[in-house]
Amino acid sequence: MENHKAAAAAVAYRLLNQTKHKSNKILHQRRLIPNSTQLNPSSSTSGFTQHYTSVPLNQFVASYRWDLRKSSLIRTSIHHRKFGSLASTIVQRNPNFSTINHDDLIYFDKILGAKKVIQDPEELQTANTDWMHKYKGSSKLMLQPENTTELSQILEYCNSRRLAVVPQGGNTGLVGGSVPVFDEIIINTRRMNSVISFDQVSGVLVCEAGCILENLISFLDKKGFIMPLDLGAKGSCQIGGNISTNAGGLRLVRYGSLHGTVLGLEVVLANGSVIDMLGTLRKDNTGYDLKHLFIGSEGSLGIITKVSILTPPKLSSVNIAFLACEDYISCQKLLFQAKRRLGEILSAFEFLDSQAMNLVLHHLDGVRNPLPSSIYNFYVLIETTGSNESNDKATLEAFLLHAMENGLVSDGALAQDFSQASSFWHIREGIPEALQKAGAVYKYDLSLPVEKMYDLVEEMRTRLGAAANVVGYGHLGDSNLHLNVSARQYDDAILAQIEPFVYEWTSRHRGSISAEHGLGLMKAEKIYYSKSSETVQLMASVKKLLDPNGILNPYKVIPSSLVS
Amino acid sequence: MENHKAAAAAVAYRLLNQTKHKSNKILHQRRLIPNSTQLNPSSSTSGFTQHYTSVPLNQFVASYRWDLRKSSLIRTSIHHRKFGSLASTIVQRNPNFSTINHDDLIYFDKILGAKKVIQDPEELQTANTDWMHKYKGSSKLMLQPENTTELSQILEYCNSRRLAVVPQGGNTGLVGGSVPVFDEIIINTRRMNSVISFDQVSGVLVCEAGCILENLISFLDKKGFIMPLDLGAKGSCQIGGNISTNAGGLRLVRYGSLHGTVLGLEVVLANGSVIDMLGTLRKDNTGYDLKHLFIGSEGSLGIITKVSILTPPKLSSVNIAFLACEDYISCQKLLFQAKRRLGEILSAFEFLDSQAMNLVLHHLDGVRNPLPSSIYNFYVLIETTGSNESNDKATLEAFLLHAMENGLVSDGALAQDFSQASSFWHIREGIPEALQKAGAVYKYDLSLPVEKMYDLVEEMRTRLGAAANVVGYGHLGDSNLHLNVSARQYDDAILAQIEPFVYEWTSRHRGSISAEHGLGLMKAEKIYYSKSSETVQLMASVKKLLDPNGILNPYKVIPSSLVS
Repeated sequence: MENHKAAAAAVAYRLLNQTKHKSNKILHQRRLIPNSTQLNPSSSTSGFTQHYTSVPLNQFVASYRWDLRKSSLIRTSIHHRKFGSLASTIVQRNPNFSTINHDDLIYFDKILGAKKVIQDPEELQTANTDWMHKYKGSSKLMLQPENTTELSQILEYCNSRRLAVVPQGGNTGLVGGSVPVFDEIIINTRRMNSVISFDQVSGVLVCEAGCILENLISFLDKKGFIMPLDLGAKGSCQIGGNISTNAGGLRLVRYGSLHGTVLGLEVVLANGSVIDMLGTLRKDNTGYDLKHLFIGSEGSLGIITKVSILTPPKLSSVNIAFLACEDYISCQKLLFQAKRRLGEILSAFEFLDSQAMNLVLHHLDGVRNPLPSSIYNFYVLIETTGSNESNDKATLEAFLLHAMENGLVSDGALAQDFSQASSFWHIREGIPEALQKAGAVYKYDLSLPVEKMYDLVEEMRTRLGAAANVVGYGHLGDSNLHLNVSARQYDDAILAQIEPFVYEWTSRHRGSISAEHGLGLMKAEKIYYSKSSETVQLMASVKKLLDPNGILNPYKVIPSSLVS
Repeated sequence: MENHKAAAAAVAYRLLNQTKHKSNKILHQRRLIPNSTQLNPSSSTSGFTQHYTSVPLNQFVASYRWDLRKSSLIRTSIHHRKFGSLASTIVQRNPNFSTINHDDLIYFDKILGAKKVIQDPEELQTANTDWMHKYKGSSKLMLQPENTTELSQILEYCNSRRLAVVPQGGNTGLVGGSVPVFDEIIINTRRMNSVISFDQVSGVLVCEAGCILENLISFLDKKGFIMPLDLGAKGSCQIGGNISTNAGGLRLVRYGSLHGTVLGLEVVLANGSVIDMLGTLRKDNTGYDLKHLFIGSEGSLGIITKVSILTPPKLSSVNIAFLACEDYISCQKLLFQAKRRLGEILSAFEFLDSQAMNLVLHHLDGVRNPLPSSIYNFYVLIETTGSNESNDKATLEAFLLHAMENGLVSDGALAQDFSQASSFWHIREGIPEALQKAGAVYKYDLSLPVEKMYDLVEEMRTRLGAAANVVGYGHLGDSNLHLNVSARQYDDAILAQIEPFVYEWTSRHRGSISAEHGLGLMKAEKIYYSKSSETVQLMASVKKLLDPNGILNPYKVIPSSLVS
């Protein structure tokens, strides 16, 4: 105990002295880049994930048929890599869907006006392709309705004509959910981008679905509020898309999921019915709370047109600590203590293992170990956000002292300024980039019970032995593990050791194979790893009820065998 | 400004010096009694709400028919007061439902054993009657399954036989949702009362649906955690029932609704299918999050059998302030400031108007005005709960000083001990009792946008003039108004001035006619005041999908015209 006290006294706790809001924003922006790139376990057929560069589209083995009415090629099937094994699967174009004809175009022109009916090949090329250039559709038409009425008219018409559609916001999704698979009509919500109201007292924001997240953040910033979610893609993503995918992001550990913060929605169903659930109330127990069906259903049950969301006040005090722990059980205990002692001000609790730290130190320029006196097994980054700078600092310092006295923390540092805070975050944020530089990497984004989380990393190490470097890090506060396997080069034998083991293990421990990015096209067939067959069957029944012709975002979310 | 400073300096800010947990628990218990009695706008045909005593059951004009198979009287219709107007409506027994026969009893005995098949008239009398003695069914059978398998077998059988059932937990509901209307079989979950697991690190509790809330609170207390909800009925109510009704309670302003804190459910559908959605993860985006369908659907879509819920750590520091404001806009501004400056430690923000204060001071013994120097128009009670006593006190004091300097608060006091804290809460809690003593009272529990909330109180005053005393108070932090109209005696003319005006007004401002207690039997037909017809139609479709024979909790939640 005395040794711990001495160690505690020796640590240079220094308070982050910063222009709080500005630095906080910048930190969030920086933190998001790796987050948004690390969550694609199979972004190419090779199993080697490439980021920031286009993946060749010839991974898709497509077949085509002549569409007699249009005299043009329509792709009728798409070959994509099966996620949970080395086999592959074919997605067939649903033959019940019509193809667009001249009368359709005349109708859309009539209700929308020509400028909102996009047939320009260049614009369509962009809209057909996801931002990682991993998925590519062949839609010939994008519609950009300006309001709910127009969107309702579009869907009513498409439903009657059996024309499939793909709802698209900022097209920043990572699982192929926001682009067509074949020739689905793209319905982009970008023109529906007005703030409808904001209540300074309740903090309730009501806006259209096409509002870009960053614009909402800026709007609220002037009012002294923040959005309850923040994402790397905030400059492009739209709030309607965020809600459709139940985006997680950086603030989940503090403000919870969108199921808690979204107060109301307006949604258009496949048949054009407008469902007004746009309440602004925290308490409303008048019947089924059906808005939750549309949060996270990836546009397959309806298209969100308006949003009511509870926004938290912006707080002024931010502190960041970088700590070392000897073992994973100490990380768990530290989280337990942090929740108890920092409870109301805790805003991030991230962890990385020594393998992750070594990668960052070896592969990234200018990164220094804040705790250089020894190599520790685990590192934890804790952020607090509160309303009182001196109180928060005192609370964090007392917490850290207690943790060191109890042997949970072996060493630690408190950021004293923005530069130091950035450098701490850069270690956590730099892991994906370091992994990329280290060679081939197999990436998995998993939710697991926190007490089991690191067992998977260790089991994977045992399985792979010297063949690969297994790295564990992630959002411990959210029970969200980023499991990465780093190897010199891609190797089928390594992949066979990882998959389907990693999914089966996750499934056995009641984890989630997609913590925050949804299923989309990429994992629709993998749903059984995380959902019971009865639940999936019920999902399919709900889909059939709300979208009997299956026109909304087909081939996504639900296994194709259940919706054909 | 100087005057405000002087006033601020003159206020005796004293920190609550208490054995935190014990006093906090007692406060919560005391606070809940009025909360649980004030939310029943029409508990008798006279419009005069009586609490704690039986309301004569002759308010129900029942008709009967001979059941030929059983040779016994079966009630076939029930007459209950229409909520939104002075007219009345008849609920008819659904003739599609079978009645229990000898073979049914043999089957239930076989799968459950005799002790779980209750036919004892005394036990049935209790289970047929709600705790206010306002609703009474005529069920001849109560089943008490011990586990999911037994419950599944019961429902599969009842569905095949078209035997209607009413799920029942602690039977503490306030809208007639937890008792039979006619002869539905009562399925009580009290025997399913085990804690399955608790994770000290994540704070995730998994338990069976029949666990009594207070037992869970006690269980967690020993572990240093709390339930994210707390209710007056906690000694009887079951967590499954809490979730089925989306219970609000005292902690909503701090920990949000059950849609945010419930992580997983196991549910049995009407046909006996067991839907395992019992995840323990904060992040899981693998398909539709269907558990939300069962949160707040009052047992009409399925019966909850197991629960996974995120529990917050127990915090040690509680402070309570009682403040005076000159006008409602100051209350709103104070709430705005409290959210910003107390943000992370704010745990209650209640308000009452001078009419409410006068009633309490005149009708309750031993109540003293903590701010006696003047009569103010509004009073606000603020509670903070945090992890650091001295920091929290300093934060609250700084907040109050700032509020007084800015003229938002005219006077105020901080509780210095448990006794003073209790006396502050007693003013807020005593309002319903004071209203009862003052004469006839018409009670409404409404969610409204906070900026509009008090307009309704003032409009009601204008409408009623000298005929009645209109009182406004409630959970301002949750936008939850308790509107009460106090009169010398019940008068149809007064009621005609209030209803349907109050519902129409609430509806016009997108409010909720049931903030937290659900619709049940009492308000099933009133749903359109708070939900759009398209939403209600979608609700009915979902009901039909999940319970095609309508056996689960019939006559409740959904207008009968949509489910017959």
